[in-house]
Amino acid sequence: MSSLYCGVDIGGTKCAVALVSDRGRIVDKVYTRDHAGQDEEGLVTTVAQLIRTLLRRNSIDEQDLPGIGIGFAGHIRYRDGVVITTSNLKGFRDYPLRRAFQSHFSIPVTLDNDANAQAWGEYCFGEGQGYDDMVFLTISTGIGAGIILDGRLYRGTTGTAGEFGHTIVAPDSDLVCTCGNHGCLMAVASGLALPHLYEKKIQQGKKSRLEQLPGFDPAKIDGEILGKGLAMDDPVSREIILECGHYLGIGIYNIFQTLNPPLIVLGGGLTNWGEIYFEKIRSTFYELAGNMLHDPVRITRSAITGDAGVVGAAALTM
Amino acid sequence: MSSLYCGVDIGGTKCAVALVSDRGRIVDKVYTRDHAGQDEEGLVTTVAQLIRTLLRRNSIDEQDLPGIGIGFAGHIRYRDGVVITTSNLKGFRDYPLRRAFQSHFSIPVTLDNDANAQAWGEYCFGEGQGYDDMVFLTISTGIGAGIILDGRLYRGTTGTAGEFGHTIVAPDSDLVCTCGNHGCLMAVASGLALPHLYEKKIQQGKKSRLEQLPGFDPAKIDGEILGKGLAMDDPVSREIILECGHYLGIGIYNIFQTLNPPLIVLGGGLTNWGEIYFEKIRSTFYELAGNMLHDPVRITRSAITGDAGVVGAAALTM
Repeated sequence: MSSLYCGVDIGGTKCAVALVSDRGRIVDKVYTRDHAGQDEEGLVTTVAQLIRTLLRRNSIDEQDLPGIGIGFAGHIRYRDGVVITTSNLKGFRDYPLRRAFQSHFSIPVTLDNDANAQAWGEYCFGEGQGYDDMVFLTISTGIGAGIILDGRLYRGTTGTAGEFGHTIVAPDSDLVCTCGNHGCLMAVASGLALPHLYEKKIQQGKKSRLEQLPGFDPAKIDGEILGKGLAMDDPVSREIILECGHYLGIGIYNIFQTLNPPLIVLGGGLTNWGEIYFEKIRSTFYELAGNMLHDPVRITRSAITGDAGVVGAAALTM
Repeated sequence: MSSLYCGVDIGGTKCAVALVSDRGRIVDKVYTRDHAGQDEEGLVTTVAQLIRTLLRRNSIDEQDLPGIGIGFAGHIRYRDGVVITTSNLKGFRDYPLRRAFQSHFSIPVTLDNDANAQAWGEYCFGEGQGYDDMVFLTISTGIGAGIILDGRLYRGTTGTAGEFGHTIVAPDSDLVCTCGNHGCLMAVASGLALPHLYEKKIQQGKKSRLEQLPGFDPAKIDGEILGKGLAMDDPVSREIILECGHYLGIGIYNIFQTLNPPLIVLGGGLTNWGEIYFEKIRSTFYELAGNMLHDPVRITRSAITGDAGVVGAAALTM
């Protein structure tokens, strides 16, 4: 039997547990949504049971695994495995999540931020293969990221390095982030921003074809709806997507000036907008970089979008 | 005899060569301004002679040194020691400066960006002592920086990592950087910005006491003149200094979200503005960081401002 690894991806609505091969392939996977409504202890018990279920049905003993890797959607203090805060689940303020999981298992539990886990998965099995340094960004409701330097995840003092979503790129913007600041990259270029950007366009007197969609609610606009708008040739959807791409291009340019990496990989729901979005990101980046670009910077789409969370979490134990 | 190290700091107007002790103290130093008007080869010959002069008068044989460390004000490709470009001296486009110096000496020559050298000096002998990670920023005519991660300079793919001065913090600003982009940190918060910021204040109808200074030329405003303005209780000087501090606070906040370092050290001419400037930087930073700050971030002034260049360059050979 080849080596297997266990990864857990705990998100705000869905929790997935998978057994992953040493090549990053999913061998078996289970998931639940029951974890979301529970308190901290309840969540841990539910997820621990889910892990056991998966192991049992694959006739795997806990001791066959090198450990359990967990990616969690929140601010994680890596050194002691404490969730400092999360905006995706109730509670979990200064909660010792790694210790709580560890009490259910005899093998080592590793806990990291979900974007870090995804970055690590992308590095081990995706577009990052063959590189020493890369930056991974996941762009969906918010913007998360992971930094790989010299073949290792760079986490910083607390474990919150790579929060590019909170870097400020437009301080005079009227768009406000969940953190309360104006003009973070997240506030102007993630899923959070979309209803506000739409509202502004409509206030400017622009007409959107999205209104023709049955049950359309402008307050609930997300990446998928704008993707539909793009397919419908809706000019407002197109403008918003280009605006998001523009700001993301600025964000990526700032990453380039800061870390000078050879590779930037983008994942997350908004990358489904496809070529029009990537084209705008790249053109903004290259225009800003001008003659300051002395080595190639590859800006590409994640190779393992769907399962990046669990694959990356499993890879944390390799 | 305790160990000695040789550092060279090549700036746009001044070139210094020093012998430095293993504790970072200057043992002897010579400098010249003759290098500035010359072509590449002439500069190298002049500086090599200066190095020999210093060694001779200290009765030091080249072989007594582990190497020669050079900090150069420009974009350096570290792996092959090529100056890609510089805005501080004529020529030096894709010039193999390390090789040119190496042809004059039998001991290894190390060439790096001047801000990287200063950062390394600060790390070895200044405020960085006792830390594994830090970011150093030098704020004068431009903004340079060096990143230390896990006790090593992080240079990125080309060697241009840490160009925080070129990160964009105000894309809609009308202030333009030497790179041609709008609203880089350098364009809004370095010496470059000062005449433009002054002009804007005057256009807004504000009155400055600087006009009382003999021979005052608004186009030549620099950090020193604004420092005088501060001493004269000039409200316009004060406003500009606070505005620069505000944007630098945003820049430092972005560094915090990106790298989550425990220490940020500031050097360079504009830090002579003193407490009013640092207070604004810190208050902006803390306001933005809010409850996202989970471990202390020390923001402090360089301990070795005057000789940081040569000391850092020498430290590159340790």
